[in-house]
Amino acid sequence: MRGLFITFEGLDGSGKTSVLNQVKADLETTGKKNYIFTREPGGNRIAEAVRAIILDKKNTEMAARTEALLYAAARSQHVIETIEPALAAGKVVFCDRYVDSSLVYQGAGRHIGIDEVAAINSFATQGLEADLTFYFKIQPQVGLERIKDHRQDQIDRMDSQDVSFYEETYAAYERLAQENPSRYVVIDANRPLAEVVAAVSQQLSQRVGQYLE
Amino acid sequence: MRGLFITFEGLDGSGKTSVLNQVKADLETTGKKNYIFTREPGGNRIAEAVRAIILDKKNTEMAARTEALLYAAARSQHVIETIEPALAAGKVVFCDRYVDSSLVYQGAGRHIGIDEVAAINSFATQGLEADLTFYFKIQPQVGLERIKDHRQDQIDRMDSQDVSFYEETYAAYERLAQENPSRYVVIDANRPLAEVVAAVSQQLSQRVGQYLE
Repeated sequence: MRGLFITFEGLDGSGKTSVLNQVKADLETTGKKNYIFTREPGGNRIAEAVRAIILDKKNTEMAARTEALLYAAARSQHVIETIEPALAAGKVVFCDRYVDSSLVYQGAGRHIGIDEVAAINSFATQGLEADLTFYFKIQPQVGLERIKDHRQDQIDRMDSQDVSFYEETYAAYERLAQENPSRYVVIDANRPLAEVVAAVSQQLSQRVGQYLE
Repeated sequence: MRGLFITFEGLDGSGKTSVLNQVKADLETTGKKNYIFTREPGGNRIAEAVRAIILDKKNTEMAARTEALLYAAARSQHVIETIEPALAAGKVVFCDRYVDSSLVYQGAGRHIGIDEVAAINSFATQGLEADLTFYFKIQPQVGLERIKDHRQDQIDRMDSQDVSFYEETYAAYERLAQENPSRYVVIDANRPLAEVVAAVSQQLSQRVGQYLE
């Protein structure tokens, strides 16, 4: 049986990655084995090398289209070398960010256009879509406050965007959620982390439990 | 007046880069200033960083689509940061390889499909095409012999392809030359280097002389 491809999406500061780490820790205690956790950009050696270029703070001259193509390149390698083989082996793949992040950040946030960014990602993924997407929905001002409070020491190029960028990406996620109601699981991420973890765990056991053995 | 965009294309071993170096040396003696020489993949800091990933011999697991997207990413940065500003300033841009190399190598050679590779390159270049393309036409067996003779010590991942790859890329260049007769200047590169340099110099003074001051 083919596995299940689950992506986690949301704005910076939504707690998405912290929740993923907790879900991973919880799964590890169960002794179940047929899953992997991975992330974008990155997930394997070549994709991580591309990630290093994308996130290098020195690369202030990087054009939006270059950035979008580098994300797509890392994604292509990730799909072919990591995600597809895991799905073919019947595993559940938990992935921190995927195509939707590019549609939202490069397509909407950097104004390249969602359709154009979708086209290069279709080339990169050969059409592989997530089966389920956990969308960590957070109000822009709440997300921005969290970034300011907790990440001053490790702020990277992707975080140093202005408020209007944050609001445009929020609107784009909302649109994707509306357009993909059967794929999107909307999680209210304005709540304290423990409550968000509990909500995600409940949805996972309900929707994914049968795939995890 | 907008400048002129001239690309140099051809199979490995065609002498293309040696000729470009000679043309550059000759131009430098004239005192003319309104031109630049550049190359792909690369041409500026970010694009050269992408080049390093593409050409790293350790990256044997790189998928064809990843490679095609990395070339397109480097090209996007090259066009926006280097080529377009030079053309806008009225310069002649001499570029060692451009979109046609991707159509030939990734589209035909690696069997992704020329149309698909053209589409991601159209995204990368926003439609910027060369005004003139010097195509260094060499018979596959001649090119392969030259590579074997001269480059054993510095052979990179792109050179270690088999004969059928070389023949498929040759056929693709021939098709591009036929489909773009007004852009393509076909140079017989089976001849000794000095004769090829002379042929290119003649074509350049005839077609490009008015742009160089």
